[in-house]
Amino acid sequence: MSRITQDLADEIWTTAEAVADAARAAILPHFRSETLSADNKAAEGFDPVTVADRAAEAAMREIIAARRPSDAILGEELADRAGDSGYSWVLDPIDGTRGFVSGTPTWGVLVAWTGPEGPLLGLIDQPYTGERFCGGLGRSDWTGPLGQRPMRTRRNVPLDQAILFTTFPEVGTPDDRAAFERVSQTARLTRYGMDCYAYALLAAGQIDLVIEAGLHAYDIQAPIAAIEAAGGVVTDWQGGPAHEGGRAIAAGSPELHRQALERLNG
Amino acid sequence: MSRITQDLADEIWTTAEAVADAARAAILPHFRSETLSADNKAAEGFDPVTVADRAAEAAMREIIAARRPSDAILGEELADRAGDSGYSWVLDPIDGTRGFVSGTPTWGVLVAWTGPEGPLLGLIDQPYTGERFCGGLGRSDWTGPLGQRPMRTRRNVPLDQAILFTTFPEVGTPDDRAAFERVSQTARLTRYGMDCYAYALLAAGQIDLVIEAGLHAYDIQAPIAAIEAAGGVVTDWQGGPAHEGGRAIAAGSPELHRQALERLNG
Repeated sequence: MSRITQDLADEIWTTAEAVADAARAAILPHFRSETLSADNKAAEGFDPVTVADRAAEAAMREIIAARRPSDAILGEELADRAGDSGYSWVLDPIDGTRGFVSGTPTWGVLVAWTGPEGPLLGLIDQPYTGERFCGGLGRSDWTGPLGQRPMRTRRNVPLDQAILFTTFPEVGTPDDRAAFERVSQTARLTRYGMDCYAYALLAAGQIDLVIEAGLHAYDIQAPIAAIEAAGGVVTDWQGGPAHEGGRAIAAGSPELHRQALERLNG
Repeated sequence: MSRITQDLADEIWTTAEAVADAARAAILPHFRSETLSADNKAAEGFDPVTVADRAAEAAMREIIAARRPSDAILGEELADRAGDSGYSWVLDPIDGTRGFVSGTPTWGVLVAWTGPEGPLLGLIDQPYTGERFCGGLGRSDWTGPLGQRPMRTRRNVPLDQAILFTTFPEVGTPDDRAAFERVSQTARLTRYGMDCYAYALLAAGQIDLVIEAGLHAYDIQAPIAAIEAAGGVVTDWQGGPAHEGGRAIAAGSPELHRQALERLNG
């Protein structure tokens, strides 16, 4: 952070919000539309990619290319673009495509701005509810139907009082599942099916833990920056960096993270 | 329906919307509030009742008592009230209290108006997203961030293309679970954790099946009337009436309902 001036931080946030605005505009006309078309991207299983997903990423990249031509871009849908600034934009136009095709407002637009050591800015946007969760580079706030509020994780919640979210039982190996269940059995409440919205709820202090497996870098970088800015901790299941994807555990406080990590590893 | 005039239908809808408006006003200040208090209603497990829940039901009953003094009232939180009109209001101020305490916009206000043979009007309201799904007595529409739209279930979806929602794996006996999994294995996609919002998505043509167990009358009566008005079918797991609660299967079309019921029973 020492090299990032306030002017640069402001420029990056202005760009990130413009990118999210463009994604909203591209996606929202397709949500709950009767003409929604979904390809089947994966050879096995169900992983729809919609017209909205691709249109949104193209619109997002256009803004970045114009305003930050030296930054690299890593996106879900289109080819990586190299840069020489040392910074990258990591984009997922619709995280939670299964939720999207089901009409649930649990999917989101993910925008991260990342340096050599990991994500520095994270933005999670839910276009249908009009919610936006922003953290990093000195900022931590969320806006929505209730107005703007500071974004802070919930502290002082022990594991047996924690609310845990995951995309399980759908994701993960049998070993992943067994590890997850050790945490789930101790937590107060376990809920499913929230896609990236679970990370937003954790950053905003509504829930306490998110545990997932099978992630890509573009799924987790925006949540990492947002949650860390709000006071939480995100690592892989061994306590190391999670920003390359794979398995991740997010907690509202360092103490809860330590308790949950112990249970996860048996 | 033959005894229900258009004037009466209009009066009932005006009352139902006023009841839902009162619930919204009572509940929304408590949603995602930092001072949310939750009692533990159940002797075992986690079934929070919030201040919001009780305040909302009191406000809802006050309107009904003033406008429809001869109708009975059955609510989740307060004692039943007898009536002599032959009609009842069936109320659940916050269906999905676990979602409510987790900050997810999946809980809802349920209002049904019920005759001797079952529910005639159903209203499902999501105060945070500003969505309202209304069906029965000649009406079938939903409103929200995208404006007002007709409410129609999706037709011509065979079971292997269907999107299935449930509160499982949390609810149901082992036998219930095995029956559910027979349907789930054939469906295209199974999702969890949506509370009553799943019924609203089915009525609005976004998903195709909801299968649940352990329901109370006040959980299912509003969904039944809304889904039937939109062209769908709701029964118990034997194909009989579901409005007394227990186990329910809701489908977007009679054909899909028949296919899913066959798998459910073996």
